[in-house]
Amino acid sequence: MAFQISPSPRIERSPYYAATVADGVTAFSTYNHMLMPTSYGDPQAEYRRLTEGVAMWDVAVERQVELAGPDAGTLVRILTPRRLDHLAPGQGRYVAICDHRGTLINDPVLLKLAEDRIWLSIADGDLALWARAIAAERGLHVQVNVLPVAPLAVQGPHAAGVAAALFGEEVRGLPPFAFRRVMLSGMDLLVGRSGWSGEDGFEIYLQDPARGIDLWERVRAAGRPWNIGPGAPNPAERIESGLLSCGGDTDDRTNPFEVRMGRYVDLETADAAIGIGALRRIAAEGPQRHQLGVVLDTDDPAPTDDLWCEITVDGVLAGHLTASAVSPRIGARIGIALIDRRHGPGDRVTVTLPDGQRVGADLRALPFR
Amino acid sequence: MAFQISPSPRIERSPYYAATVADGVTAFSTYNHMLMPTSYGDPQAEYRRLTEGVAMWDVAVERQVELAGPDAGTLVRILTPRRLDHLAPGQGRYVAICDHRGTLINDPVLLKLAEDRIWLSIADGDLALWARAIAAERGLHVQVNVLPVAPLAVQGPHAAGVAAALFGEEVRGLPPFAFRRVMLSGMDLLVGRSGWSGEDGFEIYLQDPARGIDLWERVRAAGRPWNIGPGAPNPAERIESGLLSCGGDTDDRTNPFEVRMGRYVDLETADAAIGIGALRRIAAEGPQRHQLGVVLDTDDPAPTDDLWCEITVDGVLAGHLTASAVSPRIGARIGIALIDRRHGPGDRVTVTLPDGQRVGADLRALPFR
Repeated sequence: MAFQISPSPRIERSPYYAATVADGVTAFSTYNHMLMPTSYGDPQAEYRRLTEGVAMWDVAVERQVELAGPDAGTLVRILTPRRLDHLAPGQGRYVAICDHRGTLINDPVLLKLAEDRIWLSIADGDLALWARAIAAERGLHVQVNVLPVAPLAVQGPHAAGVAAALFGEEVRGLPPFAFRRVMLSGMDLLVGRSGWSGEDGFEIYLQDPARGIDLWERVRAAGRPWNIGPGAPNPAERIESGLLSCGGDTDDRTNPFEVRMGRYVDLETADAAIGIGALRRIAAEGPQRHQLGVVLDTDDPAPTDDLWCEITVDGVLAGHLTASAVSPRIGARIGIALIDRRHGPGDRVTVTLPDGQRVGADLRALPFR
Repeated sequence: MAFQISPSPRIERSPYYAATVADGVTAFSTYNHMLMPTSYGDPQAEYRRLTEGVAMWDVAVERQVELAGPDAGTLVRILTPRRLDHLAPGQGRYVAICDHRGTLINDPVLLKLAEDRIWLSIADGDLALWARAIAAERGLHVQVNVLPVAPLAVQGPHAAGVAAALFGEEVRGLPPFAFRRVMLSGMDLLVGRSGWSGEDGFEIYLQDPARGIDLWERVRAAGRPWNIGPGAPNPAERIESGLLSCGGDTDDRTNPFEVRMGRYVDLETADAAIGIGALRRIAAEGPQRHQLGVVLDTDDPAPTDDLWCEITVDGVLAGHLTASAVSPRIGARIGIALIDRRHGPGDRVTVTLPDGQRVGADLRALPFR
């Protein structure tokens, strides 16, 4: 869809915007009320850069919802059913945020900066509204703010080389989701071991939006030995790696167990955690649906990604294809299904594409790699 | 900005999408996780159609958040500081939704379908998250759902003619924000006297998304005597009329008194209403900022609408220009300011445009018309 995107203050530009335009960005999505670069015009090159080299991504849309104040820890234990008892400052976790029905409403990376200061690096959705409502209704002493912090992701097999060139060799030792404060040319940054790909990766949290172009250029310069180039979260790679797109792969009744997030739900957590009662019931009864991989009998590159496609078995609706892309690794169009648990890996299904065409497909376990 | 908009199930198409593409839509924004047509390529013609004839708008992005159940009325009295004591089914109201700090988080049109069924036709933002959090935390018996209902707006001096041709002469008598249930060729619709323009207008609430193209064509056929054509919420007209863009003209600390919504805040309402304590304090102290019109010393049509522009007086920051557009009625670039209350209509200010250019401007009262 090549249309103008109307300028609006409701949809913010990233601090890296001018750099991404200079680098030839061709497509955007919107995410958390911001423009998000999604392509630089050559999907194959972007895939290779991510899986064989190193890529830099403007992911400023991953807004940081900060919980600050004496009750920050209490609030976060209410917001997520994942136990965080021994989490130290400098550590992070991937967490599920559920509503009172146990429905998944966001899947942020949590960064614990201090006992009284926690960031939630959120997926698309106004999580600050939710967190503020809960904090106020429970009378907690905590401020919930959306910070003008802009992550820049460095992703790919050579990501650690780039991060070490920028911030010193010790960042190579950061465990997953851990982070540390670093200074770069007067910029006060966090660097963490994270990113929305199955490759190694780091995310650099810029706190001063005025330094966006400067940071972009410094990352590019540091990555030159590995031929770093621009990219974006990659539809094919993320499906291969089985990463969740919250809001894309989920609907208004999806619980964490349906989308392989059961391991992030601690059923023994405190009763104060929102949704824990519903989640215990769902765990006891078994969820209705589960998330599987799909290999379609086509390598037609036409995108099917703009809506969910019906999946049928013997003409009966079984679930939906929530995303798909042509996978260089698999050599076919692959996808993600949210489907009735009666159907499992190895089963044969039919997918109805947006144009009405019916395509056969095989169910697989996730991830593909 | 002419870029591809990447397809994603996070960003839904409207049921009218194919019709708007066939009618030559050239630009979109996103709003409530949906694509919203914003232009058909001829702003002057679209302005004239709206102010002299009649236009049809795809405003499916005005999502309906339904409160359904025995506590629907209780919940809505908690959600808004506007009193709704004598509101009968079939009546509607423009309401402010504030958080506990008194900050405006949405400005929906409320439609009371029944004592136990209320729709909030929302501005951009995940109000359902907020409403669900409040309902659950207060133990209310109410379901909060985002409905697949798609409003189509008919706006302009001849809107009543079109509505009467479709639904009968009695719709001409609908008071502002009132609505009624109507059937059209088997489509179960609501039609209400509302719309985001200063002109007369109706909004038709389609409940079956599969009938979108059918409804679009029927509205077009009914409007043919008045040369109806496609359009979209119009930046120039809405500024002339002083309509609020919640999230565009507001920031994370804007209260209703700052944006001319004080008349929708009843300070005597029940203490259970969220934010009422903060709103009483703000009313007593007087808000810090207010919203005024601006007439700039330029009629350069270059848009400045993608971000807030600083307004200074004698070199000191006084506020921001939150929107602007060239007004055919005024014959100049006009805008909306959120500005310190020390500055009032008649004052001279300086606006710094995104390219750094400084332009003189006069403050005015709102609306312009």
